[in-house]
This record gives sequence, C-alpha cells and structure tokens, in this order.
Amino acid sequence: MARHAVRIGVVGVGKLGRFHARNLRTSVPGAELVGVADADPVRTMSVAEELEVIGFPTVEGLLSADRLDAVLIATSTSRHIDVIEAATQRGLHIFCEKPIALNEEETTRALELVEKAGVLLQIGFHRRFDRDFVDLRERIEREELGRLYWLRLSHRDMAGPDPAGYMELDGPLLVNVTIHDLDTVRWLVGEVAEISVMGGSVADPRYGELGDYDHAVITVRFENGALGVIDNSRCAGYGYECSAEVVGSLATGRISQPPASNLSMLSAGLETRRTLADHTARHREAYIAELAAFIDAVATGAESPVPGADGLTAFSLAQLAVRSAQGSGRHLTVDAELSPLGLVYTELDRVRS
Amino acid sequence: MARHAVRIGVVGVGKLGRFHARNLRTSVPGAELVGVADADPVRTMSVAEELEVIGFPTVEGLLSADRLDAVLIATSTSRHIDVIEAATQRGLHIFCEKPIALNEEETTRALELVEKAGVLLQIGFHRRFDRDFVDLRERIEREELGRLYWLRLSHRDMAGPDPAGYMELDGPLLVNVTIHDLDTVRWLVGEVAEISVMGGSVADPRYGELGDYDHAVITVRFENGALGVIDNSRCAGYGYECSAEVVGSLATGRISQPPASNLSMLSAGLETRRTLADHTARHREAYIAELAAFIDAVATGAESPVPGADGLTAFSLAQLAVRSAQGSGRHLTVDAELSPLGLVYTELDRVRS
Amino acid sequence: MARHAVRIGVVGVGKLGRFHARNLRTSVPGAELVGVADADPVRTMSVAEELEVIGFPTVEGLLSADRLDAVLIATSTSRHIDVIEAATQRGLHIFCEKPIALNEEETTRALELVEKAGVLLQIGFHRRFDRDFVDLRERIEREELGRLYWLRLSHRDMAGPDPAGYMELDGPLLVNVTIHDLDTVRWLVGEVAEISVMGGSVADPRYGELGDYDHAVITVRFENGALGVIDNSRCAGYGYECSAEVVGSLATGRISQPPASNLSMLSAGLETRRTLADHTARHREAYIAELAAFIDAVATGAESPVPGADGLTAFSLAQLAVRSAQGSGRHLTVDAELSPLGLVYTELDRVRS
Amino acid sequence: MARHAVRIGVVGVGKLGRFHARNLRTSVPGAELVGVADADPVRTMSVAEELEVIGFPTVEGLLSADRLDAVLIATSTSRHIDVIEAATQRGLHIFCEKPIALNEEETTRALELVEKAGVLLQIGFHRRFDRDFVDLRERIEREELGRLYWLRLSHRDMAGPDPAGYMELDGPLLVNVTIHDLDTVRWLVGEVAEISVMGGSVADPRYGELGDYDHAVITVRFENGALGVIDNSRCAGYGYECSAEVVGSLATGRISQPPASNLSMLSAGLETRRTLADHTARHREAYIAELAAFIDAVATGAESPVPGADGLTAFSLAQLAVRSAQGSGRHLTVDAELSPLGLVYTELDRVRS
Repeated sequence: MARHAVRIGVVGVGKLGRFHARNLRTSVPGAELVGVADADPVRTMSVAEELEVIGFPTVEGLLSADRLDAVLIATSTSRHIDVIEAATQRGLHIFCEKPIALNEEETTRALELVEKAGVLLQIGFHRRFDRDFVDLRERIEREELGRLYWLRLSHRDMAGPDPAGYMELDGPLLVNVTIHDLDTVRWLVGEVAEISVMGGSVADPRYGELGDYDHAVITVRFENGALGVIDNSRCAGYGYECSAEVVGSLATGRISQPPASNLSMLSAGLETRRTLADHTARHREAYIAELAAFIDAVATGAESPVPGADGLTAFSLAQLAVRSAQGSGRHLTVDAELSPLGLVYTELDRVRS
Repeated sequence: MARHAVRIGVVGVGKLGRFHARNLRTSVPGAELVGVADADPVRTMSVAEELEVIGFPTVEGLLSADRLDAVLIATSTSRHIDVIEAATQRGLHIFCEKPIALNEEETTRALELVEKAGVLLQIGFHRRFDRDFVDLRERIEREELGRLYWLRLSHRDMAGPDPAGYMELDGPLLVNVTIHDLDTVRWLVGEVAEISVMGGSVADPRYGELGDYDHAVITVRFENGALGVIDNSRCAGYGYECSAEVVGSLATGRISQPPASNLSMLSAGLETRRTLADHTARHREAYIAELAAFIDAVATGAESPVPGADGLTAFSLAQLAVRSAQGSGRHLTVDAELSPLGLVYTELDRVRS
Repeated sequence: MARHAVRIGVVGVGKLGRFHARNLRTSVPGAELVGVADADPVRTMSVAEELEVIGFPTVEGLLSADRLDAVLIATSTSRHIDVIEAATQRGLHIFCEKPIALNEEETTRALELVEKAGVLLQIGFHRRFDRDFVDLRERIEREELGRLYWLRLSHRDMAGPDPAGYMELDGPLLVNVTIHDLDTVRWLVGEVAEISVMGGSVADPRYGELGDYDHAVITVRFENGALGVIDNSRCAGYGYECSAEVVGSLATGRISQPPASNLSMLSAGLETRRTLADHTARHREAYIAELAAFIDAVATGAESPVPGADGLTAFSLAQLAVRSAQGSGRHLTVDAELSPLGLVYTELDRVRS
Repeated sequence: MARHAVRIGVVGVGKLGRFHARNLRTSVPGAELVGVADADPVRTMSVAEELEVIGFPTVEGLLSADRLDAVLIATSTSRHIDVIEAATQRGLHIFCEKPIALNEEETTRALELVEKAGVLLQIGFHRRFDRDFVDLRERIEREELGRLYWLRLSHRDMAGPDPAGYMELDGPLLVNVTIHDLDTVRWLVGEVAEISVMGGSVADPRYGELGDYDHAVITVRFENGALGVIDNSRCAGYGYECSAEVVGSLATGRISQPPASNLSMLSAGLETRRTLADHTARHREAYIAELAAFIDAVATGAESPVPGADGLTAFSLAQLAVRSAQGSGRHLTVDAELSPLGLVYTELDRVRS
C-alpha cells in the first residue's frame, strides 16, 4: 500500500523558500505541499498562485492547517526561533535553514524545544546530499584517499546582499555563509583543533562599516593533523562557485565547479561557456535530495539525517571564526566539547604572539 | 484553482518504461501515474510495487482504468501499433517511444488512428527537450551562428543489445538508434537532400549476420547546402555519449559530453573521472521535460510538441539510410515530400557512379 | 666529440617555411641554418634578416652554398618538383612539405630522382611526431585498445586561402589538407578498403566554382573492418582544430583539441578562453620534433622516418577521395597495391547503385 | 650581422641544473653552452657527455674558461654564495636559482658583490616568464579585472625531498618553495601588509622533527586591501601543480593546471588522463623564456629582467612566513621598507591576541 503523504507547509518564500516550495510541490515523492506563508502577503500570494497551493495570511494559519505534519522554515534567520517555537507547540517536524539562529541562546533554546516536543529537526546543510560530496566522503571513509593531508574549499557568491538590514536578519558572512563550509569540512575530515581567519571588506566598504567582510580566508588545523583552507567571497562576479579538494596519502579527490551548460560557443579565437549563477543551480539535485530525506525520515520515523546538533556545532565554530577575524587574523586553539545538545566549540587558549 | 491531474498509465516497463514511470510518479507535476502493465507479469508487479501504483495484468486492464487520460508506450517497437490501436479506441492521449513502428504501413496506420480519434500523440524525441540542444537551436534561430556550414553528431552506446531477437522487436541500428539523430539534425539544421551511409559489423559479427551494423557513419547534405555527419556506435565501451557541433559563418556551437560526476580522483600521475553509462543519465532532465510537456499539452489541450508527423519523417529518412548502407555506402539523393500525414522522405534518383 | 652540424637551407619562406626556418635556427639541435631563398626577394631578405642568416637571391645560389647537407622545401606544391630535381642533382638530403606534387607523374618522378641520387627524403607529416598521436599509436600497437572499431578525425582551419591561384599552386582541399588525415589514419589504423567522400562549397561559392570544396566528410572502411570518418573545414572560424578518437574493444583513446592558454577569464556569468589559431601553434613541438628527426637521420645516415613512399601512398588515396567527391558522394572500393616506389591506391571496382 | 653568442657555463647539474643546461644547449638562441661543473664528478661527466660540452672538474675551471660571459648557478642554495663570489671576481654575469641564500647576511652580501662587480644578476623566478602568468599580469595592469579583491595560488609537488640533509642545503618549505609564490603574488597584486601562516608536518613526521612542514597555508592581506591565500604541499601525490586565480571587481582570471597530455583513455565507465609530474614539465616554455631573456639582457647590456632585489624582497617575506608559522599560525603585520639593495620586509608590530 502506498504510504500516506507527508503534509508540509513552507514559512518564508523569498528566493530559497520559494525554491524549496517548488521542489516540494513538483519533485519530492511522498510530500504534499499544503501551503505557504510569508511576512510579505504579496509574496505569499504570488508563490501560492504559482504553485497552486494555499497562501496563508499568517504563519499561525499555516501551522494550524488540517493534518499538517511538518514545516520548512526559510525565513530570515532572526525569525527562525519564533517559527520553531510555534511549530514545536503543535508537534510539527521541522526542516530549518542554516544557521538555526544568530546567537547561542536562541540556538540552544531551539534545540531544547525540539527535544522536548520530540519532533524531528533537520538543518539545511544541503551539501551533505550532493552526490559529488557524498561520493568523496564515502571514498574517504573507505580509505581510498589514505591518511588525509589537506583540504581546500572555495565557496563564492556572484553578488553580495544589499548591506541595508542583512546583518540583523541573517548575520555576518562567517555565520551566514561560512557555516556551510565549516559543516562540510567537519563532515569530510573531522573536528577542528585550530582556526585562523583573515577577513576583508575589499569589494564594498559598507560591509566593513557593519563590522562584516565580503571576502575571508579561514584556515584550520584538524584534530588529525590535516590542514584545511576555506575561501569565501560574497561577490566573485562571475557566478556562484563551490569546489573542493582533499589531498591524502593515497589519492586526491577533487570536486570541480561544473559549467552551467554543456554548450560552448566558439568564435574568432574564443570559446565561451556560461557559469552557474547561484547555489540553487549548482546544487539543484542536492536540494531535492535533502527534502526527500527529510520527508522520508518523517514518514518512517527515522532519525534526522542532519540533526540540530550539527547546526549547533557548526554555529559555535562560526562564532569562533568571527572572533578570530575580528582580531584581524588571530589564531585560536579550539576544542569541541560535548554538551547535552551536541558538540560545542570553545576557545581552548590563546596562542602567544 | 489547481488543475485536475492528468491520469496516465505506462505500457511496457523495461528499462526505459520503468524510468519514464518513475519520472511520472516523482518528478512530473500534474501527472498522476495510475498504473503499469507489461507483457512480463513479474516485471509489472516489481515496478508497481517499487512505485506504489497498480500493476495491471493486461494492457487492456490498464487502458480501461477509471478516468484514464493518457498512456505512455514503451514496449518493444513491434508492439507499439497494437497499444496505439487500443488506446485510440478509448480516446486516450498517447506518448509513444520512437520509432512509432518498424515499417511504413504500421507507422502510417498509427498516425491515421490518432488523427481519427482526435487524440494527441507525442513521439519520444527527448533531445528536443534537452536544454543544451534547445539552447543551440534557439541560437541558430536567432542567427547567432550565421549561415550554417557543418554539423557533427556523435551518438554512442556503452554496450549493444543481445543479438537474439532485437531485430524483430526493435529494428536495426539505423532505425532504432539513428532515428534520434536524424530527428535532431532536421530539427537543428533543416531537411536533407542527400544521404550516404557506411555501416559495419565490426565489434560483433552476429549483428552483421542479421543484416545489421554495430557502427555506422551517416553523411548528409542539407537542402541549404550544409554538410552533416552522424557517427553511431552500439558498443563504444566507455559509456554512453551524445555530443554535437554546428559550425556556422559567425560562430560554432559545441555540445560536449559531460562527465558523470564533478569528482575526479588523482593519484600517481593520473586523473580519473567517471563517464556516463547510459542515455537516461545523460539526458535525465530532458526525459522529465518531455513528459512535463506532454502532461501540459494534455491538460491544456495544446498541440503535441513533437507530433506523430515528426516520427513519420524521421522514420522515412532512416529507411533510406538503411537502403544506402545496404548498398555498402551508396549515395542517395532524397526529397522530403508532403503527404497528408506529414513529410515523407523518398529517394529522388540515384547518383551515377 | 660533438657531431658535425647538419648544414641546411630553406627554400620557400612563406608562413610555414619561415616557421620551419626559425625552428631550425633556434630549436633544432645539430642543425645549422645556412640561409633561405624565396621567389619573393623581399620575403627572402626579411626572413634572412630576422634569423640572421644569408638570404640567397636564387634557389640555385642556396643549393650551391658551401658544404650544404640538406634542403627543406616549403614552396608552393607545384614548385616542389623543380627544387627536388635541383637538390638531387647536388646530392642534398630533402625535407619536403606535403604533398610532394599535385599529380601522379611528378610525385613518381620525385621519388625516382631521390632514389637515383641515394639521398634521404622526409615528408612533412608532422602529426607523426606529435606526442599525443605518438602515444595513441603506441597504445594501439601495444593493443591497449584491443581490436579497433572506429576512428574520428576532425581537422579544421580558422580561415580558408584566397581563392585566387591556390588551386594551381597548392591543389584542392582533399589533396592539400586531407592528405594529412589520410596519412594519419593509415598510420594509426592501417590500409583503407573503401572510401566515400561528400564535399561542399558551403562557406564560399568561389571554391565551388574552382571545382573545390570548403568542407568535406571522408568516410573510410579499413581493411581490418574498422570504420573511420574525417571531417575537414577550411573555415571553421573559431580557430584551427585537430582532434581524434579511436574506439576499440578494450578502450577508447581520445585526443582533445587543447585551448590556446591555461588562462580563462570569467565575468558576468561567462567563462572565456582563447582557442588555437593555427596549425603551427597546435603542433609546435611536433614541427620541431620532425625537423630534429630529419637532422638526426641525416647526421647518422639512418633511414627516413617518413619516407617518400608515405607521401606517394597518401597522395594516391587523396586522388581517389577527389574522384569520390566529384561523383557527389560516390562510394569507391579501393586497394593499396605495391609498386616499386611504395603502396599506390587504385579504385578496385565501382559499387553498383 | 649575427650577434656574438653569449658563452655560458652551468654550475650544479642536478635535476634542475641539467634541465637548464639542456635548454641552453638546444633551445635558447644566442647562447653557447661552454661547459658544466658539479661537486659530483660523475654527474658532471654524464651531463657533459649527454650535451656534448666540456665537463669541468672544478667550478673554478669552468669560471675561468676562455671568453666566458656568464654563469648559471643551480647548486644547492647553501653553495650559491661561493659561486657568486667567484663569478663576480671574474666579472661574469649571473643567473642564479632562488633563493639567493638561506640567510639574510649571505643574501645581502651576494647583492653587494654583484653591484660592486657591475654584473647582471637574474633570479630564477620562472613564473614571470610563463605566458599564462604574463597574460594575467598584463590584464591586471590594463585593468581588465578592475580593482583586485582576492588571489589564490596552489603550488604542490608530487613528492617531497629526502629529509636527510635538505634543510642545510636548500632550506625549509617556506623559503625553498613558497618563495616562488611570494614573488608571484607581489608581482601580480603588489606588496603585502599582513601575513599569517599555518604549517603542518602531516605527511611525514620527519619534516616536523627538523622544524619544517610538508603542507602550509599562507594567508596575506595586500597593501591595497585585497586578500590572498597560497597553499603549498610537498607531496600531493598525483603530480606537480601550479594554478592560480585572481578575482577582481570586473573579472576573474583563472590559470588552470593543464593535463600532461591531450590524450585521454576511456574504458569501462572511466576517463583517465595523465597529470604533470614536475615543475619542468609544467613550465617548460617559461624555463626556456627566462634563459632567453637572460641571454638577451647579457648580449644587449639591458637591465636584469628579474634583478637580485626581487630575490631579496621575496626572501625577507619568506623569513617572516617562517616566523609566523613557527608561532603556529601567528598573524604578523609587515612592511616592505626600501633598503639600498631593494625592498626588505620587516615585522611592523604584533597583533594583540
């Protein structure tokens, strides 16, 4: 017999929320998109109409929809905690975009609410469902690469956010963007023992005026001795990029940035190809796969494939990255300590200089 | 208001039919997969169970399912006509894999049945929905390439079919496989004025004993003067390949074969990447898009995006390709004449030699 | 002790001759470029000055230079025979660009003169010294590819010659350009049993008015049963291209066209790279290697690495390609018969049509 | 009239010196390789025989050779200063591999000797002659990239040196290897204001026991605000790599690591290509071009294209990189101050932590 569809609503239908909603509507088996809600009623109605689902005037309306099983939260980060609270009160399972919150208190509280309600929480670390990254991780686990020496991760956006307001809503570069990379490197290589960050507001001084950066280099030493470097750009100009390399004693695995198309145009001594413009194009299948995994876990009662603890751990490391960068490239020795809610990074001591 | 879902059944759930069925079940918005039927009852049940739909013991049972709107036919080619007949009797819209039939009579009859029944027929030329090919065609139409000089199309399978039985069921290389390429070149460049084919049974003599080939070169001169060459292999060994080039006076468009993955492994002086194994991996999105277009056309009453006439035209050209090859590389001057059912290629005269 | 340098002169310093002369002057160990001569005295002086060698007002003057060992002939093809005659009279070793001549009589006579004079003759089939092609051939010989099924060779120029005069001086596309490809396929796969050519004057009707083509597809069946296809363009527009594939039962070898540079520029959603403009850039190292091999053979008295017989064989096959194309894609069954001067292709019989 | 050839000797014919000697013998116009000398007499004789030049039993013998114009120094770094002293005493022009010396005293003394002798000194920063890097630099200077935001440079060896002895002879990773990268980033982007290094002895603990690293990440902030990251590996295993990216406000320039060959082999679902094994293969043309520039500067009396000052500046920055790494990722604020011999980097102050 066919399984009962998982009834889900999407809260926050800006660019990413709308993309998730469309995936739930068209490409995730076993999901039934009940409706959407957004602080902006025009956006709510526009997406509802496009996807032929109900547009709820309020989040509460959506969360109280008949027989709702789950909610996907893609609002600004600062609004996550309110939706999580309302959802846990109703016993809804939660798929929440990263980071969970912009400070440790709300992050901790979110996890406590989830634990108390006994619902499933999955964090939107979509790269864990990208088949190239999954393939690389499996090869690492099978020891095809041997002992790990080195990792590089390049993660760049085509253009940065409007400086007005994003800091309060979504947080700084190292929290909003780098958290993906910190999760990825933990997942691929293991826990971090040292971190050193150099950030710059090179492209747009307004980021610097807000205490933020548009470019950053994050260097880490892993507990197993391997070194890693993450480079982030808010505004690389040519497109979105996510590429990686892991060098080991037996082999190197390299994930290249694919072109946007297999079609190139050649003329007058030049060959031209389109680049991928954004993360939804770069990881389209991974975004669908993470939702399919969520729906599947909800339907079967399985554990969360990316539990809240992973969001907490990466967030605590991102906070230390901010501290390192604000000290202008300061080197921090860190430690991942087990708390009741998961691993939390703290600064162990400071390196003499 | 949400549109009524298009209720569809799949007849024939071998490799390709099962793939289509899964796409209809999981990835095509507006489609409702009612059930499947296959001459092999074990296969019927296995796919039905996997997709959580009804497995019908007979094709008739499936076609008589309550409120069925459409049928997708992915049986062996020789069985297409019977299903088309049964479907048109019930007024069902039809998505039919290529070629429509293995001879002109059945092809013609299929089109007459469809016309009489007033149903929609779409032929499975999926490349017309591949975004690279669509992009290239649009650039040709916008004259970005200028006047067209030249086309190359490489289309290769990793491994050929079991020689036992395929000729009766699915026809020879030039009909079963090359028909895709003949459709593509017509669609990209225009009608053909001359054709010359050299085929060989190089890899496996059993193909030759059946009067068939495992490799072929098809050279054409288009009505507009451009030249084109198609190379086909049944058994290139390394994977499935579909790549193309169109050279024009202003620019060349090149569609490269993508790797199977963005991950490459490097070790001891070598870099290794996986190749795509089959056509469903190479054109996954195009296969979904052609079904979405079909479902959309059925739901809205629009015209078929790839009408039966295109199947007839490509088939008639494939028949001439067979005739050319059997004369061992004979050159034929051909003409596409308008019949009541669409353009049909005939041999105009024979080139003196 | 260091070996005596091979003293060599270059006759004909148009684009290719000047390139050869510069290579002899700067990059070929053991060669001593004595001087150059060209029918155009301005060109002679310009190249002589650039390379700091003697510019001879006449070919005879150059060939009579003190202690000259060898001559490189890079004049228009129609003038090859006169230089060969003068060189053989003086006992000079000869490096001659392809084809040897534009007709069978002169080709034969050239080889007879060389044989009688007992000098070494090397034909300018530079691809035989291209490390990718050499690598592929060695792999074929070591049977890494298994039995050969299929070959594709794409050979395209960025822009064609000025229609005025080239036919008399250098001959038609299938002789002047395709002769390289016919030599390559013989060298890689073996002798040809069938050939079928379709040519078109698509880009510039003036080529057609001269009875020539600007594009051609040459399909061959090898004696071992494998099929091959060569595509030639005089004016692909985007650059020069030489790429190849050989499919075998165990593996496929693919020689890709390299970009002109490892630098790509990315901006606004596009990645752009330069393409190679001409054959001297595409095969720069091979051009040096063929001269080094010639100088070495002269110095050591070894046999010619690419003897005149190879020029004769490829030329005779090119003549049949012309015959096939002029019959508008006519299919020819051919045979390589051993003559006293080497293998010569003749038409065996004509295929019925 | 032809220019008098520049007579040059090579001191030190280990791997790189022998490579230089062969280039001087065969590929650098205007150079006349007189002979070679090496501390190892067997090596001296072997290279002398191979290249058909004189093998001198002593460096003094070579430097005293008749009419010698110049010397190329490719000994271990620690022996550079003695050869520089002997060469300047004889008024010979000097091409010296990097770094000039392993400490500041000898570096300074070398430059003073050169200045006093009035001879030309060129440092072996070959990347300055690599056409991709030159092209990128010219585009930066023409402001095609706009304002510079970001740089990445990956520089990796296939396998590291034998731990025994290399530290005394050639110095640590950050001096011996990274000096190339520090020169490159200065040359491409400008002077450095901050540097932070994290090094690890991940692959082979013996490097760590010597106080050295086998992997390192060097992060810099340029005076113009741009950020840069260099990653170095002694033993990436798959081959030698040198690739780079510079992101700017208008465009990004990316120098990809080329494959070793244009030939790939495909079989059973895999495509395999050879990677470049070492720096001489990666930059073969650049190595020839730097020697051609040296010979040309000597012959014409032009200034050194890469004067000793550049060696001094990069060395002083490399020393600070060592200091940063030894503090385990310590962040240093640095300044390039003008000394009589060129720019010298010093630590400006230490960042609080």
